[in-house]
Amino acid sequence: MTYSARDLAHMPASEVRKIIRDGGWAAPTPGLSLGYAQANMIVLPRDWAWDFLLYATRNPKPCPILDVTEPGDPEPKIIAPGADVRTDIPKYRIWENGVITDEPTDIRPVWRDDLVAFLIGCSFSFENAMLEAGIGIRHIEEGVNVPMYISTIKCVPAGRFSGNMVVSMRPIPHAQVVKAVTCTSRFPSVHGAPVHVGDPAAIGIKDAGRPDFGGAVTIKDGEVPVFWACGVTPQAAVMQSKPPFAITHAPGHMFIADKRDSDYSVL
Amino acid sequence: MTYSARDLAHMPASEVRKIIRDGGWAAPTPGLSLGYAQANMIVLPRDWAWDFLLYATRNPKPCPILDVTEPGDPEPKIIAPGADVRTDIPKYRIWENGVITDEPTDIRPVWRDDLVAFLIGCSFSFENAMLEAGIGIRHIEEGVNVPMYISTIKCVPAGRFSGNMVVSMRPIPHAQVVKAVTCTSRFPSVHGAPVHVGDPAAIGIKDAGRPDFGGAVTIKDGEVPVFWACGVTPQAAVMQSKPPFAITHAPGHMFIADKRDSDYSVL
Repeated sequence: MTYSARDLAHMPASEVRKIIRDGGWAAPTPGLSLGYAQANMIVLPRDWAWDFLLYATRNPKPCPILDVTEPGDPEPKIIAPGADVRTDIPKYRIWENGVITDEPTDIRPVWRDDLVAFLIGCSFSFENAMLEAGIGIRHIEEGVNVPMYISTIKCVPAGRFSGNMVVSMRPIPHAQVVKAVTCTSRFPSVHGAPVHVGDPAAIGIKDAGRPDFGGAVTIKDGEVPVFWACGVTPQAAVMQSKPPFAITHAPGHMFIADKRDSDYSVL
Repeated sequence: MTYSARDLAHMPASEVRKIIRDGGWAAPTPGLSLGYAQANMIVLPRDWAWDFLLYATRNPKPCPILDVTEPGDPEPKIIAPGADVRTDIPKYRIWENGVITDEPTDIRPVWRDDLVAFLIGCSFSFENAMLEAGIGIRHIEEGVNVPMYISTIKCVPAGRFSGNMVVSMRPIPHAQVVKAVTCTSRFPSVHGAPVHVGDPAAIGIKDAGRPDFGGAVTIKDGEVPVFWACGVTPQAAVMQSKPPFAITHAPGHMFIADKRDSDYSVL
């Protein structure tokens, strides 16, 4: 059986994960299981895990860690007990030496006893708060994946990891920019407040119409492009640091947790 | 030369660290370098560092990591470039197999090439915000170290580390409890909102007048004891998990960073 986004919008996370696991959904996940937190993922061999956890600790804005699995164990016990990170994400990317070699929908065939999965906060978690504050989300309105860009903002290196920050962009009317800052600030562990407001060129983005990941969206007259740190940042680090083996989610194709968005609000 | 707390209250962090380094201050640090963030510390051998960083990641409320040094390097490059964690804290504790064996004021004689220092947020950072909101801080008023207790709240284990959460307590008048919650919520990386409001027995504290660390303070009629997660929690984990070697700050004797308290406010 296949489903529409509408079918899955108000389903609990555990049911949507089962549908994904059974092959009923292989598309991006914005709008699914509304109210449940979604997470980015990177999987690395144990001997690269210290470097990555340190990289995330030093760069909490793009890489807020929500859960870390035990080596070889695919269950994220803190954010979704009983789930399996090998099957419950709609699409994965396999990386070898910094290059994508496959985009499977199930990673059990390549799973190993030494793999550690890191689940990282996602800005989709504050989009509901923005909508409730009366701020439209353009990529939802236009039915595309959020636009993401590799900025020139450098992350703090850690061990073998270094790279630039990936940012997501939402066009916001001038009059709502302050509200967009304050209402996302309450969610620091899902990227929190924006990292940049305004001119894309100031953070090295030459053409907002050509994102590095996700889809392009319309920026209307009187709107300001606002940029948030993005959990695809580890993928930019993988491109630059070239670990022999890594697995990530495909951008926009997130892990849907049992935690609620509200669990990550500090106020 | 020796100094009074008043002398050091409005001095920049770097100058107070130099005074500490030169032996001019060996007492608790609340009230010194007002506006600068203070940090808890735990130093562990590299082969225990993964377990601890994972423990901190899984328990961000008591163990918010502000900086992690490179093995053997005593400089916390993110929060205080140029500082030396071996000399810049007024008093340390040396731990062997979970037991305190010494309380020196300089750890250079026991420093090793494999040691990693973790600097952890401290609730002193939001005390200024509380004072500005008109909420008195009893331990400052009474000139003692903040009272801290080993609660029955269990931390999430990681590798060889497990233990209960240590909490700090401030008595707050009934009418100001909500304000105390909201104004500290803005500081999630320095422990943020309280973990418990009211009856100490509900989190296993039998006698609020007998703290496990720090000093006792008066709880007046009409006041509620309010408890925050505390960065002494790693010391409870050291007691329980018994690593062969560890160094911590002595409770209340903090590392004073160049970062400002306001750097850790999300709103």
